[in-house]
This record gives sequence, structure tokens and C-alpha cells, in this order.
Amino acid sequence: MRASLISIGTELLFGQITNTNSVYLSQQLQDLGIDVLYHHTVGDNESRLISTIENAMTESDLIITTGGLGPTQDDITTATIAKVLGLDLVLDKSSLEEIETFYKKLGRPMTDNNVKQAYYPMGGRTLENSKGTAPGIFVEGKGVAFFALPGPPREMKHLFALHVLPYLREESGSILYYKILRTFGIGESALETKLEKFISNQTDPTLATYAKEGECSLRIASKRATLPEAKLAVAEMTSKIKNIIEDYIFSEDDEDLNTVVCNKLIAEGITIAAAESCTGGLFSGKLTESPGISSVFKRGYVTYSNEAKINDLGVDPSTLEAHGAVSEETAVEMALGAKAKSGTHIGISVTGIAGPDGGTEEKPVGTGYICVAFNQEHICRKIFMRRNDRAWNRGYAVLSMFHLLYEVLNKYF
Amino acid sequence: MRASLISIGTELLFGQITNTNSVYLSQQLQDLGIDVLYHHTVGDNESRLISTIENAMTESDLIITTGGLGPTQDDITTATIAKVLGLDLVLDKSSLEEIETFYKKLGRPMTDNNVKQAYYPMGGRTLENSKGTAPGIFVEGKGVAFFALPGPPREMKHLFALHVLPYLREESGSILYYKILRTFGIGESALETKLEKFISNQTDPTLATYAKEGECSLRIASKRATLPEAKLAVAEMTSKIKNIIEDYIFSEDDEDLNTVVCNKLIAEGITIAAAESCTGGLFSGKLTESPGISSVFKRGYVTYSNEAKINDLGVDPSTLEAHGAVSEETAVEMALGAKAKSGTHIGISVTGIAGPDGGTEEKPVGTGYICVAFNQEHICRKIFMRRNDRAWNRGYAVLSMFHLLYEVLNKYF
Repeated sequence: MRASLISIGTELLFGQITNTNSVYLSQQLQDLGIDVLYHHTVGDNESRLISTIENAMTESDLIITTGGLGPTQDDITTATIAKVLGLDLVLDKSSLEEIETFYKKLGRPMTDNNVKQAYYPMGGRTLENSKGTAPGIFVEGKGVAFFALPGPPREMKHLFALHVLPYLREESGSILYYKILRTFGIGESALETKLEKFISNQTDPTLATYAKEGECSLRIASKRATLPEAKLAVAEMTSKIKNIIEDYIFSEDDEDLNTVVCNKLIAEGITIAAAESCTGGLFSGKLTESPGISSVFKRGYVTYSNEAKINDLGVDPSTLEAHGAVSEETAVEMALGAKAKSGTHIGISVTGIAGPDGGTEEKPVGTGYICVAFNQEHICRKIFMRRNDRAWNRGYAVLSMFHLLYEVLNKYF
Repeated sequence: MRASLISIGTELLFGQITNTNSVYLSQQLQDLGIDVLYHHTVGDNESRLISTIENAMTESDLIITTGGLGPTQDDITTATIAKVLGLDLVLDKSSLEEIETFYKKLGRPMTDNNVKQAYYPMGGRTLENSKGTAPGIFVEGKGVAFFALPGPPREMKHLFALHVLPYLREESGSILYYKILRTFGIGESALETKLEKFISNQTDPTLATYAKEGECSLRIASKRATLPEAKLAVAEMTSKIKNIIEDYIFSEDDEDLNTVVCNKLIAEGITIAAAESCTGGLFSGKLTESPGISSVFKRGYVTYSNEAKINDLGVDPSTLEAHGAVSEETAVEMALGAKAKSGTHIGISVTGIAGPDGGTEEKPVGTGYICVAFNQEHICRKIFMRRNDRAWNRGYAVLSMFHLLYEVLNKYF
């Protein structure tokens, strides 16, 4: 099956909105094994929408539109699809009742133009939308299946899951199931090399690697007649793969590293305190994304000045004098200090030069040190934040802290 | 002038990348008064790229492509544009030298396929790209001007500013100049009402309001024959508008509130310390986005536990006992404590319930207090983080802190 996506709305052409609907739909269709040939964006203009639809129809069996289903004059999607297919519009009375009910619940009067949303091209049907007033539309014609979905992402995703996904699953006569293993500590090419015998001979399940900053994901996908069959095939392949790369896997459920780390801290009651310099609080901010973290995260110190490092963390002034604020020695004392001051199991620290200024020949912009102190031990690691971009560098330092923390948790707790 | 944008790259159709290039280019063209008719996204496929270009040419005078300019086999943009226009490809020797130099600087050998990037369609020219190896391409043919820009946003924006913008300014024979005033403390409809006499009779300059979370921007744009004329028109209108809404304006240069606040702190040497509970370090993290902030930001405390509030900030245990950690009294003592402990001019604090759990009948999820202590005074404000979304709530709390801090800085410093 080959698909084209058409996003409808002049606000998209003004650059007022980023088109996230196309990204979402592309990922979903990709997961189902459906090729997406084109994304088109067109304004609320009938003749351009007609030519866009006609062009898309020449190569696609499936067209998904988003937007232009509302009650106002510039919402022309349904009528235009009907026109291209040569179909009349008919009123769906139950949709009309739902729209009336929606307004009653809101306690606002329904204006006449809302009736428009209850029409659909003859031979098609409306797609119930409990998250908004505009129902979606399904219709087939001239060898192409059309789904018209509302523009707001929340409504679009809801209708996709409820109406489009079941249709596509049935059409394809098969089920795609996949699992995403997330790894770090191994590059994409090294990962491929280790798994070469599975990757080069793959039929089903298929394997694909995706690299992103400091991490690599592995997608194991199987397309079978039934879900249990697909799940079994993925489980068998996962177990073979784990025999080879288990040490690098930090999540088998596509979780972020910070979520994995937080879950472990919370589940095992391991308490932690943080001392940050160059990241300015971003590590603590990331850690506290997880609800429930307050049971184990006790304190964060953002010690931007030497004075703060000395007074709040007990860093020895002579250490700062001899080695500087950005040094292994300072990072270690910061982590030990955060741990001691807070009485936690773990203290974690970072100090570095995120740029754009502050570098020296010996310690250029990008130099940093992170340390995890635990039990009577500590592990310190030098990092290099390598971009000419303060925000990127700070994000990289935070990620490195989660990496080191994960390693320590896994090995020593 | 009417434009179409074509984004080229199979990774876009897989949903691996969000298309931010089209958003950026649309905004830029919109600012220049150029209508954008379509966005198209197509994979690295010659026949589909040809049909996309041909379709776009039927209605556009200007086509800007992004992506597909690299050295590999699937980079087909230049050759395909040449094919559609019936032009041969010619080698640009100076571009080739630049690519060679680029690799020398990197210390890596240049592979043969890089030579491909130095070709351009006869009659056109390459557009120098100091931020990457692939130059852009400009060529005119069949009544359409083509700019082919690289896909990476950083390179694309660089080439747009350097090559496309000057061309478009000259072509249009007029200059659009605009200023964006950013306000807070007033809603979009109230702003429009206050400025109604200017908005309803607008010809040039034009006024447009844009609302976003907690803020409202006002764009004052003038399109004149010369830049000085446009600037003068905008300045005159700005001065009239400032007479009416001056109190709400925090930036006349489209700066974020945190940038405005940081610049003032740094410029005037006003020192600050922060004490955070529910935001977990995000306020300090945002404040330290600005390079140079280390001269005035001394310390941040992330006091997630009562013990930390007592030990690190000197909050009175009886205050916590009597009023709870989320209370005006605690927020005030946190701000005073941060200020006193750090010896800064300002102490700022936040305490609240970001959710999803932790609410009570008296203090539901979303309840929060922020406080700014300065000189011998302090101002405390109750906030309500109103969404069922922990991340949104925490971001709202940080924004509210910057709002209050801005007010204090403006009034008392």
C-alpha cells in the first residue's frame, strides 16, 4: 500500500505551526509497513486542494488529510474530496446529534455553520470524534481510500487509533508488532557488526538500528497473521540478541535513560543528591521530571561560584586554588560533599566549561568532569562537550551524568 | 511573487525528522510579503522529484528546495533540477577548491564522490556555504527562480540569509521591516481593544498580535521602497503604541523574558540566588542559559525535602509544621534564606504541587507560591499551574518566576 499525506490550512503555509501531524502519521504508517510517498501542505484554497489531491491520487492507494474539517467557510476538505470523486454530500443525522450534544455539554449555543460538519461524501461515512466537534470522514473512490482527519493533533491521533489503524490492519491482513531496545556505550556501526548475522539474513523479524546523541536504538519488528505469532517471533529474536549485546541495553521498552534511572532509584529506595556547576540545575530538573522522585531525591546544589562550592559542599579552597573549579579533584569533592551534606546513598556532580567563553589552552571550552560518589567509593569521568553551542553542551553533560549514574546503579546497587 | 517549498529526503517521509525548514522559510517569505502556495516533501526518488518540481512550477515563480545536495548517490537535487530545466551540469572549480580546503581543515581525506557537490546547472551558480561542504545552487529557467539549499537547518539558514534574502529584496523592489514588541500581563483581546484605532484602520504599517502562553507579541511591519523609510514608519507607529501599552512591554527586540531579565542582572551587577522545590532546578537551568550569568548568579538550591529547606535555607521547622511546604510562609522563608545564605541582592523561590499526585482538598494539584526577596522587602504571589501535565505545570511555574522577577527589577532596581 502506498500513501500520501495532505495537510490543509493556510496557517501552515504562514509558518505559524510546525507540521507534527505528518511526522506522527509517517511513523505510524512506516510501522505498518506502508510506504509514504509524499507530504503535501496546501492552504484553504479549493483549486489548489483539488490539484494536490489529483496529483496524490496518481500514485497512492491511501490518502490521509488533516485539517479543514471545521465549521467555518474556509474549511473545505470534505466538500473538495467529494468534488474530486464526483460524489454528493449527505447529512449524517447521528453525527449532527453528537455535535448538538457536545455544545449542550459545553453550555454554549450551537451556531448554524456547525451543521456542515455532519455531512459526508455519499458512499462514505463519518468517523466519530469524541475529542472535538468535527467528525472525521472515510470514503473510497477511483481506487483510492481517503481518511480526512481533524487538524488538532490530539483529535487527529484519537481518530487515527480508533478508525484508521483498524482499517489498515484489516486491509493488510497482518499485524506488525515491534520492540525497541535502547543501548548506550556502543556505536551504531559496532552494533551492526556484532549483529551482522541477524541483520544480513533478515526476513522476519526485521532489525533496524537508529543512532541518536550518545545512544543507539534497535527495533525488532515482526509482521504476522496474528498478534501472538508476531510477539513470539519478536521475543525469540530479542533473546538471541540479548545473548550478544545484553551489557549495552538499558531499556527493552523504549524508555529514556532518565526514566530508567529514576524508576530504579525509586523502586529500590536509593537516595541521591546533586551538585551542579555548568549545567546550572538541568540535571536536577531532568531527574525531577519523574513523579515520585521526591521520595529519593533530597537536594540539588547549583554551585555557580567558588564560594558556593566551599560553603555549601565543603570543597576545600586549596583544591580550587591548586586545580581550578573545572577539575577532577573539584568534581570529586563536589560529589562527596553533596552526599555528605544530604546524607544520601549517592552524590553526583558536574563541573565544566559550556562556553562560549571561559576556555584556556589547557582546558578549552567543552572540558568537563562528572563524578558519582556512593558507599565509600567514587567514579570520576572526564567529558568533552564538543559543540560550539552552549545549550547542546549542557544537554550533553546532563546525558553523560545519567550514563555514569546508570552504570553505577547497575554495577554496585 | 508566489513560492513553493520542496523538502527532499526519504528520512522526512519516515517521520524520523520534523520539517522545521519549511516553517522557517515560510516565516521568512511571509515577512517579505511573498505568498507560499505549497510545501511538498518527497523522498530521494528522481521520478517523484521531477513530478513534484513540475507541479510546483505551474503556479510558482520561486521554488526553494532543501536537502539532497550531499555527496552520496541518493543526493539528486541539483541533477534533477537541471534535468527538469533541460540544462547541462558544469563544474565550479572554486567550489571544488573550497570543498578540498574544508576536508584539509578537518584533517580527513576527501573522497571522490565529494566532487559531485561542485557541479551546478549551466547558467546558474553555486552559493558559497562556509558552514558545510555542500554549496547551494541558484538557477533560473522556464520562468521560475530556483534556490537549492542544504538540509541541515544551520546551513540552510546561513545560505538563506547570505544568498536568498538579498535576491528577494532586490526582486520585490520593496523592503519589509518589522519590529516585534513582547508583552505580558495583558491578554490578546484586551491588547487588540486598546489598539483598536490603529488595527482597524491599518494600511502601512500593519499590526498583528500573536498570543502564546502567558505572553502576547505585537508585530509592527512596514513595506516601503527603502529601508530607512520602512524603519521610520515602524518607529513612528511604535512610539504611538508605546504611549498606550508601555507598561506591558518587556522587549522591543523580540527577546525572551529570561534573556531580558538576565541581561539586566548582568548589566547592573544585581546578584541573585534561587531556591526551588517543585521546579527541581529548571529555573536555575533557564537562568544559566545566558553566558555571562556566572558574574551575578551565585547559588541555586533544589530543596526537594523539608530537611533541605530547613538545613540549607534556614526555613523554620514550625513554619513547615503550621503551614506546610507549599505555602506563602514557606515560599517567603525560602527566598529570604537563599538571599541570606548567598549574600545576594535577590533571593527567588518557588514551592508547589506540579502533580500528578500530592494534592489535597485545600491545596489541589497545581497550587504554588513564588517569592522574590530583595533589599529589606519581599513579594510573594500565589500561582495556579492548571494543567493535568507535570511538565507543563513546571514550565509555567518557571515562567511565573521570571515574570515576578522582571516586575521587581523594573520597579525597584
